[in-house]
Amino acid sequence: MYTLEEIQKKVSQYFADEDFGSRLGGLYEPIGYALSQGGKRIRPVMLLAAVDLFGGDIEQARYAAIGIETFHNFTLLHDDLMDRSPVRRGKPTVYRKWDENTAILSGDAMHILAWQYFLKQPNKNLLEILQTFGKTCLQIHEGQQYDMNFEHRDDVTIDEYMEMIRLKTAVLLGGALKIGALYADAKPRDVEELYNFGIDTGLAFQLRDDLLDAYGNTATFGKETGTDIKDNKKTYLLLTALKKGDDKQTATLKALFSSTPDNPASKIKEVLDIYSQLDIRSEVEARIAELHEKAMHHLDAVSCPASAKEPLHKLACSLLDRNV
Amino acid sequence: MYTLEEIQKKVSQYFADEDFGSRLGGLYEPIGYALSQGGKRIRPVMLLAAVDLFGGDIEQARYAAIGIETFHNFTLLHDDLMDRSPVRRGKPTVYRKWDENTAILSGDAMHILAWQYFLKQPNKNLLEILQTFGKTCLQIHEGQQYDMNFEHRDDVTIDEYMEMIRLKTAVLLGGALKIGALYADAKPRDVEELYNFGIDTGLAFQLRDDLLDAYGNTATFGKETGTDIKDNKKTYLLLTALKKGDDKQTATLKALFSSTPDNPASKIKEVLDIYSQLDIRSEVEARIAELHEKAMHHLDAVSCPASAKEPLHKLACSLLDRNV
Repeated sequence: MYTLEEIQKKVSQYFADEDFGSRLGGLYEPIGYALSQGGKRIRPVMLLAAVDLFGGDIEQARYAAIGIETFHNFTLLHDDLMDRSPVRRGKPTVYRKWDENTAILSGDAMHILAWQYFLKQPNKNLLEILQTFGKTCLQIHEGQQYDMNFEHRDDVTIDEYMEMIRLKTAVLLGGALKIGALYADAKPRDVEELYNFGIDTGLAFQLRDDLLDAYGNTATFGKETGTDIKDNKKTYLLLTALKKGDDKQTATLKALFSSTPDNPASKIKEVLDIYSQLDIRSEVEARIAELHEKAMHHLDAVSCPASAKEPLHKLACSLLDRNV
Repeated sequence: MYTLEEIQKKVSQYFADEDFGSRLGGLYEPIGYALSQGGKRIRPVMLLAAVDLFGGDIEQARYAAIGIETFHNFTLLHDDLMDRSPVRRGKPTVYRKWDENTAILSGDAMHILAWQYFLKQPNKNLLEILQTFGKTCLQIHEGQQYDMNFEHRDDVTIDEYMEMIRLKTAVLLGGALKIGALYADAKPRDVEELYNFGIDTGLAFQLRDDLLDAYGNTATFGKETGTDIKDNKKTYLLLTALKKGDDKQTATLKALFSSTPDNPASKIKEVLDIYSQLDIRSEVEARIAELHEKAMHHLDAVSCPASAKEPLHKLACSLLDRNV
């Protein structure tokens, strides 16, 4: 059994040891660039923590861990292009550093590499592992499509939003855990509980992200705050405010979220004022706490000793208690 | 054993029976659109013909056949976006009918669907089948990258061009045949011969395409002629002419292939005149005949009765003898 820190160290080492291609510059160089930007490597850590939880040999899932992170980074690379985001993790995005066609083609190649990593290590459950991976990948794309559709709608409900983030964010955490559990040949009921732990953790994680975007400390969050408001994103905060607000507040919010002023500072302030009047922050905090608790119930239900669950327990807490 | 026409009919039926998603319009509608445009379905026909050649049950490879065509159409969808091609098979391309982001995201989803199709039917050789598919997919993207790199180079050799079309076009024909052979559990030597039959057929097929672009009858070819010249594409014809031409002809060709006149008719005529002076057409015909012969030697070497090879023999002839 490993500690969370040991697993995180192993994942870092796996990525440091991997050669993402020095051949054919235009195709592989952006892949190496995208994968070397670091980040928390949450998905491979979860995958390997799940292998370890059920007594599997994490070395036997090494390439699945690299594969799931490669897939995740491929989606970020194409999302950045579709969203025209100039910066990720403090560096120019691939489409900015190179160009659009390079981002399209090297993203596509990364997507293939992700599958190839999964095919590197046979396992008795490989077919189910690959089917889980494929289903998860497709759901993420459905989530991205819902997110894009939401931009053109002004009647998005909170339930629809939760379904969108389930697909776009939560299923990959659930999928990583399920794949890890399958590598260790865990019992179906345990696989399911662990998957649901991942889903609820993922939902709470995304709500925390929405909250951080509005109230985060730029230094610790690592991103500018207020960008969701600036970009008129329909977040959990906005949808809750639209639901709770009176006619005047709702009308003001709708007007603000249709505007794109050159200097967004006063727009951001006006929105945050309404959020504050409606106590949106406490409302979101309560929903995060509720999801966190649900997640922990699922983890508790997994038939392993509590001590073995420590790394996943700790990881979920670190994801959800990020300072606001 | 089926005839070529029976296999082609089966493939058409498979596609007619398949529901490419009526849910989530923005994501699946373009996929259905791209896959319903028809085309010759060469790759699934080859895959199933290979299964049948070795006495396998082609129904057991039904979803692999759909998967390989889905992958092929995904690459066309993204290529059309990267090349800014407005029309494919007489209809607007996905990025024109919808928009760029729809083309990126629905292409990515199609790519996942291709893998999912392969995972629908277990087979004792599934791991090798998937590894063959993955390697082939990556090679195609490497070929596309070489092709894009060639645009910015003026020293492309004929050997480099042949390597580019091997990756971009030929490996998918070879891969389709290899996968079909693996479904039928053919002997490794036969798998290899059949793969090489596909490679040489694919190379000849691409040279025939280059020739058709310059000399094809628009009505039977289904595309405008002279587009490669108009678009300054480095084809086998141009590279051969640059190699064979005297200093004056070479200089004229280089100048013409750096120009993009509004009305390209006289440019096309000038280029074709030089090709004619240098007898380029016969040269390319000779290379196609040589590759066709090499392909047939590989097919001959497969340890099956000659009668069983009839569909593949006929298919290769139909691909390579397309009227100029």
